Amino acid sequence: MTAPPPQTVLDQLPEALDKKKARQRRFKGLAYCHFIDDWRHIPRGTAVFGRQVVYGYPHIGRVLALEAGLKAHFRAPFWAEEKINGFNVRIVQIEGTPIALSRGGFVCPFATDRLPDLMPLSVFEEHPEIVVCAEVAGPDNPYLESFPPFVRHDVRLFVFDLMQKDHNRFLPCRDKTEITDRHTLPTVPQYGYFTLENVAEIRAIMLRLNEQWREGLVFKEDSDRNHRAKYVTGNVNIDDLRAAADNLLELPAEYFTNRLLRLILFAEENGLPVTPEMERMLGEALLQGLHGAFDKFSRERKVYTTFRCRFREKDNAEILLDHLRRASHGIKIQKRRLERDGAHWLLEFDRIYPALTGMLGDLMAGKMIYD
Amino acid sequence: MTAPPPQTVLDQLPEALDKKKARQRRFKGLAYCHFIDDWRHIPRGTAVFGRQVVYGYPHIGRVLALEAGLKAHFRAPFWAEEKINGFNVRIVQIEGTPIALSRGGFVCPFATDRLPDLMPLSVFEEHPEIVVCAEVAGPDNPYLESFPPFVRHDVRLFVFDLMQKDHNRFLPCRDKTEITDRHTLPTVPQYGYFTLENVAEIRAIMLRLNEQWREGLVFKEDSDRNHRAKYVTGNVNIDDLRAAADNLLELPAEYFTNRLLRLILFAEENGLPVTPEMERMLGEALLQGLHGAFDKFSRERKVYTTFRCRFREKDNAEILLDHLRRASHGIKIQKRRLERDGAHWLLEFDRIYPALTGMLGDLMAGKMIYD
Repeated sequence: MTAPPPQTVLDQLPEALDKKKARQRRFKGLAYCHFIDDWRHIPRGTAVFGRQVVYGYPHIGRVLALEAGLKAHFRAPFWAEEKINGFNVRIVQIEGTPIALSRGGFVCPFATDRLPDLMPLSVFEEHPEIVVCAEVAGPDNPYLESFPPFVRHDVRLFVFDLMQKDHNRFLPCRDKTEITDRHTLPTVPQYGYFTLENVAEIRAIMLRLNEQWREGLVFKEDSDRNHRAKYVTGNVNIDDLRAAADNLLELPAEYFTNRLLRLILFAEENGLPVTPEMERMLGEALLQGLHGAFDKFSRERKVYTTFRCRFREKDNAEILLDHLRRASHGIKIQKRRLERDGAHWLLEFDRIYPALTGMLGDLMAGKMIYD
Repeated sequence: MTAPPPQTVLDQLPEALDKKKARQRRFKGLAYCHFIDDWRHIPRGTAVFGRQVVYGYPHIGRVLALEAGLKAHFRAPFWAEEKINGFNVRIVQIEGTPIALSRGGFVCPFATDRLPDLMPLSVFEEHPEIVVCAEVAGPDNPYLESFPPFVRHDVRLFVFDLMQKDHNRFLPCRDKTEITDRHTLPTVPQYGYFTLENVAEIRAIMLRLNEQWREGLVFKEDSDRNHRAKYVTGNVNIDDLRAAADNLLELPAEYFTNRLLRLILFAEENGLPVTPEMERMLGEALLQGLHGAFDKFSRERKVYTTFRCRFREKDNAEILLDHLRRASHGIKIQKRRLERDGAHWLLEFDRIYPALTGMLGDLMAGKMIYD
């Protein structure tokens, strides 16, 4: 986290806007800017509200070998927290209203809308400058098909870091815990405080998480440099492949090969034999996902995934759809329904994948390909 | 097949050499040139020996839907021949000596060496101008890890077309059969003569080939235009994925996604349900291949595949190794042994995959990656 101080971010914003490294946006009358790429040490996702800077959430490096990775990168004891399979938000109070920023730095109309359902907002009364870094995860979210097995309905929020506006660093872990405890903020599961002597214990936790199809751990060093690393389970790669199968042609092909490699490395490094059951689960994830895509194409001439999510305010659902339509790079967003569902509005929409839809159309019509 | 006449190929050769679209080579004192790309309608692989032109073997288009593909592309009855999982050669007699040209147009030292073992060469006495187009396939070949299940040892040759020097067209199927029969040339299995009414029968053949893990069929129209198409089984994709798994990072990632798509399309189009057994076989192909790579890396710090092949003449083995070393784009070729084996010389060599070797080395050392 070597980003420049907030005054420098403000000074460089006009040039960043000019060079299309940052852009201006508006959410319900709230004007702001956000950096859409890493630029001059300003992290992607950094958002600027007037003269307040909310720094982007930094990348966390991934290790694929647990023991070697910890030994290569950690010099002090560290905490192990659960990595949650959701989307990253930073929640800040701007002009008295809490909003949720996406990883990329835009105001997420969905998470912002649902904040009162997801966490106690009292923390902003005592700490108006705080930036709550959290994962929003669950089956009913507008962005991702995969979700943690223990969130069976709607979405939940899991806090994993606290920052402050205008400060490009995390609060130390003990300060974070003090605040999250006092305000009963929902946090990611904590697995303890470890040293490099405890690798066997950490490995046992990882194997348990793997069996439960959970995503993995993030390690956070107890030091000023607050060094981090993440390590994920093998099975979450199978989940990712299943979720991505109908999206085969829109994702970079490396998405698939990377996850295969991570899966085998997890098995090898943790001494898990490649069992027929593991083989079947991998094959099933790939084939059932593709079968589903083909099935949809056969019946409806399009390959799509249906997403659903709930809102407190109807207009936020429309703002989300507008946002997705602008940001979806050729993937078509089609509303199915937006209707009352108890205290909420239930939105259902399809993400229609043009590349696979087009390719299946061509191939089913007998198109000849030269490869 | 709209390539220019041989005189034009000869006229354009100096410019092609100049523009690096063709290159000069030498095989044991025989000088020749070959086109390394399609260029001005001259197909890649076209080779020039003095003033004799051997045209490149044209691409055959692939259909992924059998019935729609045949109906879209065939206007007359057609033959169905088996597609053999090997490497393509064109065999010609130059200055009285038969040589085998690779698809790319270089003289293959392996196939050339083995020609007397693979086919009766008497055909060149009666037809000195003939170009025999064939697949060389089997477990002991220097290029490919996959091979047909019915070739259990060494390699065999399967003729599928005849051309003539200086003529950019195939001999009609009946003329081809007359010559291959008379000279007892080994041919690809023939499945018959069909019309568009016979799709069910062809589908039954494909399903049988699929059960036998054979590659598929090539359809050749009985007409002047001699139109062709190929259609492969689902299972051969699983074989390909198994063979490619340790080569994960050297191949384009689309290699994997394309084969997954072909596999599911074959199942869907032929009404094969996605069974747990199919799932397991796909998962096994991917995971066992990667497990093998990891295992080699753990023991020997390198990921490689061992190839073996037999030669009649020892120097041809050395010429092959030289050729592979020049042509292998960063993949390291390491000789294991070259020794007498009955009437032949047995060559064993490793293809060492630098990308996966390097990546596993980094990751096992705990390298952190940002993705």
